[in-house]
Amino acid sequence: MEDHNQFDKYPKMDHDTKIVVIGGGHGLSTILRGLKRISENITAVVTVSDDGGSSGALRRDLGVLPPGDIRNCLAALSDDEEFLSQVLQYRFSSETSVGGHNLGNLLLTALANITGSFELGIQELTRILAIHGKVTPSTLEDVNLVADVEIENNGKKECIRVFGESNITEKNGTICNLEIEPKNVIANPEAIKAILAADLIALGPGSLYTSVLPNLRVNGIAQALKASHGKIIYVCNVSTQPGETTNFTCYDHVKVIHNAIPDVVIDGVVCNNYHEAAESKNISWVKIEESILREYRVFQDDLIDKAYPWRHDSNKVAEALLKAYKELGSTEN
Amino acid sequence: MEDHNQFDKYPKMDHDTKIVVIGGGHGLSTILRGLKRISENITAVVTVSDDGGSSGALRRDLGVLPPGDIRNCLAALSDDEEFLSQVLQYRFSSETSVGGHNLGNLLLTALANITGSFELGIQELTRILAIHGKVTPSTLEDVNLVADVEIENNGKKECIRVFGESNITEKNGTICNLEIEPKNVIANPEAIKAILAADLIALGPGSLYTSVLPNLRVNGIAQALKASHGKIIYVCNVSTQPGETTNFTCYDHVKVIHNAIPDVVIDGVVCNNYHEAAESKNISWVKIEESILREYRVFQDDLIDKAYPWRHDSNKVAEALLKAYKELGSTEN
Repeated sequence: MEDHNQFDKYPKMDHDTKIVVIGGGHGLSTILRGLKRISENITAVVTVSDDGGSSGALRRDLGVLPPGDIRNCLAALSDDEEFLSQVLQYRFSSETSVGGHNLGNLLLTALANITGSFELGIQELTRILAIHGKVTPSTLEDVNLVADVEIENNGKKECIRVFGESNITEKNGTICNLEIEPKNVIANPEAIKAILAADLIALGPGSLYTSVLPNLRVNGIAQALKASHGKIIYVCNVSTQPGETTNFTCYDHVKVIHNAIPDVVIDGVVCNNYHEAAESKNISWVKIEESILREYRVFQDDLIDKAYPWRHDSNKVAEALLKAYKELGSTEN
Repeated sequence: MEDHNQFDKYPKMDHDTKIVVIGGGHGLSTILRGLKRISENITAVVTVSDDGGSSGALRRDLGVLPPGDIRNCLAALSDDEEFLSQVLQYRFSSETSVGGHNLGNLLLTALANITGSFELGIQELTRILAIHGKVTPSTLEDVNLVADVEIENNGKKECIRVFGESNITEKNGTICNLEIEPKNVIANPEAIKAILAADLIALGPGSLYTSVLPNLRVNGIAQALKASHGKIIYVCNVSTQPGETTNFTCYDHVKVIHNAIPDVVIDGVVCNNYHEAAESKNISWVKIEESILREYRVFQDDLIDKAYPWRHDSNKVAEALLKAYKELGSTEN
């Protein structure tokens, strides 16, 4: 079991703050791991367009949504993350008759089939594993990612259309645009309900194009964000991601988000400002420059994980998010 | 969720009765389903020599003990049996890349590998699923069944040696003798501990040769039964089983058990005496005759499941067992 004394250091009022985090991938798990110590009312809204590995195989074989990101979020939210991660991530050797699948994916697939819906399947797993928090897909429909990717071909730059998440990240080019297909999928009602009820909505962290953006492309998500009374804060990544956000500044990140949801007010942006670690000279930091400070309320702090300085530290990023939320609230009054 | 009001009808003192049931297969699950409403201190000691189906494949592929019977007992002991059975028994289609395995087996296999032992794996699953009760294999070693089976060959009876549980039951002959291989496997310390601490030890119900007997063949189990202060009661099956106990009376059943553990006093035998169901004329009942009444204390009652009259009713058989236990206790004083 993890040490939970830390929970006590946060004021009781924080426990009830209704937090929604919209994202995917490692970034989302990281912030959830920190937030579960602060609030008891967390919903993770995740993208389900993964098409590689065990998730992809189950998706093709059994027609269920790819469970990978959901599994990671459930582990991150659990009280006994270390053990439960081992259980959910446990991968059967591909030389056995269970063919390289991991147990969390198999559990989610089975529960989705037993309950008749992927959403109910996640809810049952959450209940069985006594997880405090909710994880819900942004849409229950089967979506794939489609990107326009700029690549170099014999020294000439050209823009090609790439289908499928694993193909897109494999291309290692520069993503100019990302859509989901089909375009007009409707949002999962549970995701909409959570956004409308939220006090605080974090967009990110996570891969800008392949994790955060796909959620915003789902019909109804932008409308819910606009209608919600919750503070909307973009949590910017610590380092750039080759092929997704090469050379991107904080401003570049938030612009991609804002262009996807032009009618939504982004109340604040949480950025890392610690770029000095001597041991990490070869990390491509996401920089804060003048333009973002002019256009957005930026909350900056040292958010890096000392052991893996290209990533967020769970507690630091969660605390920075809550601090930004409170400052936004106090300026309002 | 199942209706638990029934729990209240049993006296509080029963809740603390330490019950061990030694068996396997459907019979064991059936009695556990009834006992969980009476006692909060149940240990199922099960045989793990299954070598067919998903259990057999995992055993060969991954080198774990066959998890089938353990999975069934865990489901039977859970508060939400209907749902949990569906989860644990959920079988992936053999046309998918998960190749016909069922989820409970995969969970047990993964947990055994994560925790480093099959015993700890079961304990973790019991904890995760919030199951009240314990399930433990009689031995943690890899055992197979070896039987001498009498078969008819061109009208002549001959005795052949058959290896492996699925081969034995497939032969559909008459089992004359059953051993485990290797012969000198040692008992699981958890099983021994439970037997030594028990107030009441039920042998059976379950397939006489392929479920109950293999446990008694494990080195140390007979010694623990002899040393235990608990009342030892054999729970006889309701109907005979083709190829295992064709034409067997109650006396024939208990004799097979007693011959396997000659130094152990069998304090009582619980038998069904309701053979009258008009709809079940073609059921081959296990009959109570004079000889058993002379040699054993027999507790007889209507124990059949009206819907499946060749089986025990969970509540009837559990109540009959407790009643026998109390009568044995009161005669003693």
